[in-house]
Amino acid sequence: MAGEIEAKLKSLGVVLPVPGPPAANYIPVVAGGGLHFVSGQIPLDEKGAIQFVGKVGREYSIDEGRAAARLCAIMLLAHLKAALGDLARIARFVKVVGFVNAMPDFTDAHLVVNGASDFLTDVLGDKGRHARSAIGVGTLPRGVAVEVEAVIEAK
Amino acid sequence: MAGEIEAKLKSLGVVLPVPGPPAANYIPVVAGGGLHFVSGQIPLDEKGAIQFVGKVGREYSIDEGRAAARLCAIMLLAHLKAALGDLARIARFVKVVGFVNAMPDFTDAHLVVNGASDFLTDVLGDKGRHARSAIGVGTLPRGVAVEVEAVIEAK
Amino acid sequence: MAGEIEAKLKSLGVVLPVPGPPAANYIPVVAGGGLHFVSGQIPLDEKGAIQFVGKVGREYSIDEGRAAARLCAIMLLAHLKAALGDLARIARFVKVVGFVNAMPDFTDAHLVVNGASDFLTDVLGDKGRHARSAIGVGTLPRGVAVEVEAVIEAK
Repeated sequence: MAGEIEAKLKSLGVVLPVPGPPAANYIPVVAGGGLHFVSGQIPLDEKGAIQFVGKVGREYSIDEGRAAARLCAIMLLAHLKAALGDLARIARFVKVVGFVNAMPDFTDAHLVVNGASDFLTDVLGDKGRHARSAIGVGTLPRGVAVEVEAVIEAK
Repeated sequence: MAGEIEAKLKSLGVVLPVPGPPAANYIPVVAGGGLHFVSGQIPLDEKGAIQFVGKVGREYSIDEGRAAARLCAIMLLAHLKAALGDLARIARFVKVVGFVNAMPDFTDAHLVVNGASDFLTDVLGDKGRHARSAIGVGTLPRGVAVEVEAVIEAK
Repeated sequence: MAGEIEAKLKSLGVVLPVPGPPAANYIPVVAGGGLHFVSGQIPLDEKGAIQFVGKVGREYSIDEGRAAARLCAIMLLAHLKAALGDLARIARFVKVVGFVNAMPDFTDAHLVVNGASDFLTDVLGDKGRHARSAIGVGTLPRGVAVEVEAVIEAK
């Protein structure tokens, strides 16, 4: 039920931002082949302001990176709510890729991306558990610390 | 109609290269699950020569990076034409990932990838608009500035 | 036939590890939209010990990177066997992305990822040939040299 997911978000103190329109010629959520592909999300706060600008392993610790990944996952849900109308339509998260803007000697990208995986599992239960890749990269749009994209199946 | 897309390409002065065979054990376009997955494309000119070897933020400006991304998108269409026979079979671009070979302090990977997104939208209209991730990476095959992959739905 | 694939693996001297449970809130193989998405795999030996910790172009040569990519591909098959029960259920490898932990001036990420593509084609024949992206990145989980993810179609 949508009610359950919304209640869970509320109990976690999470308010889904209402996403603004894309800033360029792309779309937040596109359906194809029975799946929904969600564009890579960066960490925004409830009001849409960019958070966590910097690199994990320099400006940010692993825990701060995890918090940034969690904000990206919140944006995934915000866009899915806007696209699907109701989060209860999420049949399951199929795939997540988390890109971590990290220093070249950083070896814990997977722990950072756990911030997204843990949040999705916490909110959606088994439907939130996904196949995943965690990648450390040299830089990200606007210099943010983390970007997370997803593929989901909807009903 | 194919004629419309071909006419649009002509009006833009774009000649689709005829792709050569892959250089290794992979395939440019593979169908699966009702989708077509297009291998990551690098910037080639009409004759298949590699262009834009270097990093955005060092050898190349944002605008040059955008031009490189556009060449990658042209290669996506070239391979789709070869695989599908007719570009009119593209029902829609579902997902694009653009990887930008950038300096670690570069923060505009999204603007670079717009070179691909804008081109696809220009040529295909709403069918060209896609979900997207833009990622800045440390290096790319042959040292090129941009690589773009795609998932499309065909009819 | 499964027998053929298993015989081929044996002839190559490859023993598929029995994967342990995931270390976090993700799943090795998730089905969606008629496809199976396999989480990014890192190089493990037969006993599950991490191999090839370091960067290609610094600690490791191209050939060593290829060997690391091959180990990642072996892990893809190990997880698919665990998920599908029988490797003969692989209808085809649709998409592979290989991420290479490389120095910023390294220009042969594609040759490294060939270690995975060649292995999959060797073992599965035409069913192993896939669309592909090869990307050089700044760092990977646990500092490994290569990570490979895949999308397959099963029957």
